[in-house]
Amino acid sequence: MCRVLLLNGPNLNLLGQRDQSVYGNRTLNDVELELIEFFKRHDIEVSTFQSNHEGELIDQLHHANEKFAGVIFNPGAYTHTSIALRDAVEAINPPVIEVHISNIHNREAFRSHSYITPVAAGQITGFGTEGYLIAAFAMLKLLNNI
Amino acid sequence: MCRVLLLNGPNLNLLGQRDQSVYGNRTLNDVELELIEFFKRHDIEVSTFQSNHEGELIDQLHHANEKFAGVIFNPGAYTHTSIALRDAVEAINPPVIEVHISNIHNREAFRSHSYITPVAAGQITGFGTEGYLIAAFAMLKLLNNI
Amino acid sequence: MCRVLLLNGPNLNLLGQRDQSVYGNRTLNDVELELIEFFKRHDIEVSTFQSNHEGELIDQLHHANEKFAGVIFNPGAYTHTSIALRDAVEAINPPVIEVHISNIHNREAFRSHSYITPVAAGQITGFGTEGYLIAAFAMLKLLNNI
Amino acid sequence: MCRVLLLNGPNLNLLGQRDQSVYGNRTLNDVELELIEFFKRHDIEVSTFQSNHEGELIDQLHHANEKFAGVIFNPGAYTHTSIALRDAVEAINPPVIEVHISNIHNREAFRSHSYITPVAAGQITGFGTEGYLIAAFAMLKLLNNI
Amino acid sequence: MCRVLLLNGPNLNLLGQRDQSVYGNRTLNDVELELIEFFKRHDIEVSTFQSNHEGELIDQLHHANEKFAGVIFNPGAYTHTSIALRDAVEAINPPVIEVHISNIHNREAFRSHSYITPVAAGQITGFGTEGYLIAAFAMLKLLNNI
Amino acid sequence: MCRVLLLNGPNLNLLGQRDQSVYGNRTLNDVELELIEFFKRHDIEVSTFQSNHEGELIDQLHHANEKFAGVIFNPGAYTHTSIALRDAVEAINPPVIEVHISNIHNREAFRSHSYITPVAAGQITGFGTEGYLIAAFAMLKLLNNI
Amino acid sequence: MCRVLLLNGPNLNLLGQRDQSVYGNRTLNDVELELIEFFKRHDIEVSTFQSNHEGELIDQLHHANEKFAGVIFNPGAYTHTSIALRDAVEAINPPVIEVHISNIHNREAFRSHSYITPVAAGQITGFGTEGYLIAAFAMLKLLNNI
Amino acid sequence: MCRVLLLNGPNLNLLGQRDQSVYGNRTLNDVELELIEFFKRHDIEVSTFQSNHEGELIDQLHHANEKFAGVIFNPGAYTHTSIALRDAVEAINPPVIEVHISNIHNREAFRSHSYITPVAAGQITGFGTEGYLIAAFAMLKLLNNI
Amino acid sequence: MCRVLLLNGPNLNLLGQRDQSVYGNRTLNDVELELIEFFKRHDIEVSTFQSNHEGELIDQLHHANEKFAGVIFNPGAYTHTSIALRDAVEAINPPVIEVHISNIHNREAFRSHSYITPVAAGQITGFGTEGYLIAAFAMLKLLNNI
Amino acid sequence: MCRVLLLNGPNLNLLGQRDQSVYGNRTLNDVELELIEFFKRHDIEVSTFQSNHEGELIDQLHHANEKFAGVIFNPGAYTHTSIALRDAVEAINPPVIEVHISNIHNREAFRSHSYITPVAAGQITGFGTEGYLIAAFAMLKLLNNI
Amino acid sequence: MCRVLLLNGPNLNLLGQRDQSVYGNRTLNDVELELIEFFKRHDIEVSTFQSNHEGELIDQLHHANEKFAGVIFNPGAYTHTSIALRDAVEAINPPVIEVHISNIHNREAFRSHSYITPVAAGQITGFGTEGYLIAAFAMLKLLNNI
Amino acid sequence: MCRVLLLNGPNLNLLGQRDQSVYGNRTLNDVELELIEFFKRHDIEVSTFQSNHEGELIDQLHHANEKFAGVIFNPGAYTHTSIALRDAVEAINPPVIEVHISNIHNREAFRSHSYITPVAAGQITGFGTEGYLIAAFAMLKLLNNI
Repeated sequence: MCRVLLLNGPNLNLLGQRDQSVYGNRTLNDVELELIEFFKRHDIEVSTFQSNHEGELIDQLHHANEKFAGVIFNPGAYTHTSIALRDAVEAINPPVIEVHISNIHNREAFRSHSYITPVAAGQITGFGTEGYLIAAFAMLKLLNNI
Repeated sequence: MCRVLLLNGPNLNLLGQRDQSVYGNRTLNDVELELIEFFKRHDIEVSTFQSNHEGELIDQLHHANEKFAGVIFNPGAYTHTSIALRDAVEAINPPVIEVHISNIHNREAFRSHSYITPVAAGQITGFGTEGYLIAAFAMLKLLNNI
Repeated sequence: MCRVLLLNGPNLNLLGQRDQSVYGNRTLNDVELELIEFFKRHDIEVSTFQSNHEGELIDQLHHANEKFAGVIFNPGAYTHTSIALRDAVEAINPPVIEVHISNIHNREAFRSHSYITPVAAGQITGFGTEGYLIAAFAMLKLLNNI
Repeated sequence: MCRVLLLNGPNLNLLGQRDQSVYGNRTLNDVELELIEFFKRHDIEVSTFQSNHEGELIDQLHHANEKFAGVIFNPGAYTHTSIALRDAVEAINPPVIEVHISNIHNREAFRSHSYITPVAAGQITGFGTEGYLIAAFAMLKLLNNI
Repeated sequence: MCRVLLLNGPNLNLLGQRDQSVYGNRTLNDVELELIEFFKRHDIEVSTFQSNHEGELIDQLHHANEKFAGVIFNPGAYTHTSIALRDAVEAINPPVIEVHISNIHNREAFRSHSYITPVAAGQITGFGTEGYLIAAFAMLKLLNNI
Repeated sequence: MCRVLLLNGPNLNLLGQRDQSVYGNRTLNDVELELIEFFKRHDIEVSTFQSNHEGELIDQLHHANEKFAGVIFNPGAYTHTSIALRDAVEAINPPVIEVHISNIHNREAFRSHSYITPVAAGQITGFGTEGYLIAAFAMLKLLNNI
Repeated sequence: MCRVLLLNGPNLNLLGQRDQSVYGNRTLNDVELELIEFFKRHDIEVSTFQSNHEGELIDQLHHANEKFAGVIFNPGAYTHTSIALRDAVEAINPPVIEVHISNIHNREAFRSHSYITPVAAGQITGFGTEGYLIAAFAMLKLLNNI
Repeated sequence: MCRVLLLNGPNLNLLGQRDQSVYGNRTLNDVELELIEFFKRHDIEVSTFQSNHEGELIDQLHHANEKFAGVIFNPGAYTHTSIALRDAVEAINPPVIEVHISNIHNREAFRSHSYITPVAAGQITGFGTEGYLIAAFAMLKLLNNI
Repeated sequence: MCRVLLLNGPNLNLLGQRDQSVYGNRTLNDVELELIEFFKRHDIEVSTFQSNHEGELIDQLHHANEKFAGVIFNPGAYTHTSIALRDAVEAINPPVIEVHISNIHNREAFRSHSYITPVAAGQITGFGTEGYLIAAFAMLKLLNNI
Repeated sequence: MCRVLLLNGPNLNLLGQRDQSVYGNRTLNDVELELIEFFKRHDIEVSTFQSNHEGELIDQLHHANEKFAGVIFNPGAYTHTSIALRDAVEAINPPVIEVHISNIHNREAFRSHSYITPVAAGQITGFGTEGYLIAAFAMLKLLNNI
Repeated sequence: MCRVLLLNGPNLNLLGQRDQSVYGNRTLNDVELELIEFFKRHDIEVSTFQSNHEGELIDQLHHANEKFAGVIFNPGAYTHTSIALRDAVEAINPPVIEVHISNIHNREAFRSHSYITPVAAGQITGFGTEGYLIAAFAMLKLLNNI
Repeated sequence: MCRVLLLNGPNLNLLGQRDQSVYGNRTLNDVELELIEFFKRHDIEVSTFQSNHEGELIDQLHHANEKFAGVIFNPGAYTHTSIALRDAVEAINPPVIEVHISNIHNREAFRSHSYITPVAAGQITGFGTEGYLIAAFAMLKLLNNI
């Protein structure tokens, strides 16, 4: 049975609490449950992981190399600063879809650059927490094409 | 009945002919037919328009203001140079989803900046011509939420 | 009888509809009528032209070379991106007064640079739609001095 | 009775002497008399002040806060270097119209940036010493609108 | 019979009228006739096209893909701003020789960068209107080598 | 009873050992004891935490959201590189006072930019290890004002 | 008896009048009285001086060299532009504590650089007008340590 | 007996698996065994440590201060982003030799800057995994010179 | 009888007191006396003026226009920030020789740019206070050549 | 009899050996013979010179001033670094045509800037070794026009 | 018998005389003898060459193409300015190891960029004159691997 | 007997021939004779040397180390590009005075930066060929002070 990893980076554990005008009022748990259900309808199992630690996110990506068919990844603020995460994404085989809840190009200038995008399978930005579901739809397309 | 505009910018008429390693081998017509069918299943009508003329794209966005519920827009190379298109996207009410076939962040540096993204409802990048279908799925979500 | 061209660039056809907190609630038609009347009192005839097409604006400037004594020009967003319009302004003899409705120096950074100003007879910025009337007053001064 | 301040910054006392190809041959006194007369026809009294001292210009703007209905201000070279003058313009209530005799965008690069414009009511540039009269016309419009 | 397209961009219709110290006193018609004659001696037919519209230039390049063996192209000011034209040049098969009448590296800084050169077959700059004839000679060499 | 968190980032465990000409000869323990005593005199309890791990610092800030009335935070070198820490500081309610022992503006250029300051309640820089005590005094002021 | 100078730069005479959302509603006089009283409790006399003139501030710093044990200095907008003030701060012996009322790192980009900080004894930023009292506390620490 | 630490940063656990055209086909274990043997011949004991966590690498450097005579360190992608690691390298006494397997100056621009080099004893770059052995030879030289 | 003005800018009144390793131990008075004597031997009278006020230096340059044959000017820190002083130097007729005591190109980066040099008759830098005497020698040459 | 100098800079002696995919497989000798023959047909004599020494190229340009009617010059890598060569080209009377074999705008960024172009009679780039023959044709045109 | 070239660039003839705190007190002759002896033990012959002339260094690299199995090269200050040397290194077959005595990343900013590194076989930096011996060890490894 | 070297760099052999509006009409020989005579009056012997070769200028500076008491050096265009010359100037003991005939800060931007100035004893710029004599006067002062 095919498996997908939903990986979330720093401060995303605060989803639904932190500034709701930017991030909406759904919690990370709400989002995770929605994706688990969405993928279940297509016979795909989802694992979820969130960490504020750059190193743990890298470890998870390494582990995903053998255990998952694809990764949906919101790297949070590490998007803009972590070349190590980029190297991890590049080093593994499963396609990694990068998701951003807010429109990162419409905020501070330092949020408009992503180290991850050039090595990701694709990027989805600005649709709020709906972006995770859109990424799930995109992952289905990617997995069918492989 | 709800209507959506599929708008494509310069050189996208060459889709399927131009460098296939970057853009794939499906033609613009293939993509348009796929989206028409996809939306038809959800009772949404699609109009399609392609132009190499910046001014005509602006005119179309203005006309869309009253006639369409949403716009799926690949601005092609004007993404990186046209503030006038940005102003048109910002001036109209229907949400505009920005699509890029290739990973614009993984090519020449001048392709990594978009004037459109900060005023778009969201951006989908790097999934090849599948990106249009993912954008269609995202448009459904947006229209349901309104 | 002396003639003046009032030339407006992209998205200015939306004047009065588009974000009124920035651009005010008068339409382009209101502005054009006010200038026609102002110049009529000084025995000057006004032609008006608006286009979203960079090429058509260049064509109009070329035609103005022989038919008009002066041009009042709001190049809209092309102000910041069009060297071709700059070359057209520089190539013709009648003085061109550049007008901007909003304070372009008080918005996004990319709006603070103008390719047109260095070759214009003068620039009037930030007075809202009143700026057109102030430009008309300035044009009278220029025409008297010639 | 309504009063307007005509404020001029560094080196403008040399008007009419300094490089005439750039600044024309009218003296500052000529300009001041022309504006006094223009405003008198509209029952507005004008005070004039010129200084080479940044601090005195700031002091004058502070005093203008209570005594004048508007300020026509040519900050000269302080335009490009003085954040303190900008803060003073921003801190007071009467509208400040920024005037430049020469086309500052057509000279050395360091003259193309203005700290004042973003907080001014409007900017008039490049019409030679006629710019003061155009600013006076613009001030009339502003005062009528208040 | 082999055919070559001579394509000219914005403001080049003013050749011979516009600043003669920079562009010389021959008109575009003079240049076109000289090239028609030159190529005729080598049994090559020439079509000529000039437009101020970026979109029309793109359309012409697309059409050239099947009808012409090569293109001699002076993109005028679009050289420095149009990624869309660059994409069109790159997308077609016939070699495109870029010509500039003036020495673009010896003028304003914004004229020294060309989006076209990296995808052109070659560039000829600074020889005045003689540059078109030199480009014609170069085109002969290219066509012989194919 | 009110509680305050004293949070220290990477390499600050070496305080008193590492280059004493820059950081002084007091250890982190000395500083912590001084603040505990200072706050005890005002009936405020202090918790202290030091880590070289960016993720652990983020975790601590999240926990502080409910348990502490304020945070005194020296982010060490993460000041200049961590957008994730910035987001954590911004996401929580208690005021965060940023402290730097050395004058970060008087060292290598890369130390003069702080991601934290724009979202901190205030910044205290350059007073050596006395800066912690000054921050404690500032925290008293902030807590009284709430 | 020990003496301290409280020195304030341009536009700070408007404190309490100018934008209160940024600067609070206490006047400069309120602040000066609070510091006089604070220092009096520690047997330190305070002199106060405010000027909009860069030159007068330099003169005052020179005079402070012999007459004061320390300076609390808010250079206002000169912070970002005056190398001459920096040289004056550096040239004198008494320690100079730099104070900013607002969070200068959270406003326009040009306010985030300070010429003064590298030569100041320390900097206190963003605590509103409370920053002066915090600086007074810091000055006590500095004077005790000397 | 003298001891040396071989410290490896993020993603280096993938050595021999990750893109072999860049990094070669030897695993990290192969490299570690080679160095252990090399140093054993010179009566030096080697400890090895690899982590994807920035904080753990900092902790290891702190521990090395007392237990090791030298450190051979490949900081991986943290080379380009971690000021905290730089501070740790600078804070400890044993010499740290920086090693890079690939030619970091011949890849993406963001890989050509190293925060570590200015505080390292020396840098060895571009020799593939042989670089570790060359670093071992260099370490012998350094230890003999102490 | 010919007259020369020796003009000194901010902080130069501290010469001989301020950091002697950079500026030497001669006072401004010493330098002024040496130049008065040097010029007296060539029948030239010297006036001296020092001010910390930018405006007063501008005033002095304006007055020099009619009363002096040449100006030896050390603008101090205003060298790097004052466009108004540059305009004053450019506006007057007598040649202005720019002197800097220290090697401004060998200090902080912001000291290496001079607004004055492009409009000065010449620049003498880095010879310590001997630079004034060298400037006096240069002034003799300039005055002989006129 | 008219004479032309064919001057080649560093590493061009390796033509035909060095990377043939970029530079083709003709040697410098082949090119020189082709040009000698081409010019002989028009009664023009050619001298050829190649050096890896910047100074020798400058010397040759100085000598060309009196002995040659024109220079065809490929400055190789000195194109991008030598202001001294630029000065030499500018200082002499015969027109200098700059040739580049490869498309210098399509390689590393540091190869896209030329110090020579602004002072050359014209530039020919990207036609491979055919560029020398095209330059010869251009030289004929220049010599006829003189 | 295998041969290696030891090539040194500008000012390295002064080794042992020039600033000894940076470069140590061994002369270039000392270094050359040490390497000759080191390589002799491995049956490799060494030639040495030093020049202050960029052109001569290029010539030597060209000659090395056929006569040497490898080059150990310290390009001195040409490291940072010579694209011509880079082209020469890239054009030849034997591997070139770049050596720097001082830590070039720990000095003036202009010394931190090397044109040579991207085309070198590897780089060794910061070990003082020991770096040559380390490079010799690295060369042995390279030659064994070929 | 004391000796001084007058050293001139590239293209200065053309002095008096090359653009006389910038460099005047005196030849290098004229200048050299004037300095020989000037120094002879003070019992100082002058050697002169000019070369277009960077390497020869470096060699001369090395030789000057033992044979000359001081060097007057106009590095010509190498001023802006040669770090190797800078190193040579820094490496030798006799003071080097840098001279520029034209005002290098008043020409192209790339001429305003000097690699030499930070290591020169002083710089004299903009006085035309008189600058050499002024440098000679300055050298006398330097030699007396030693």
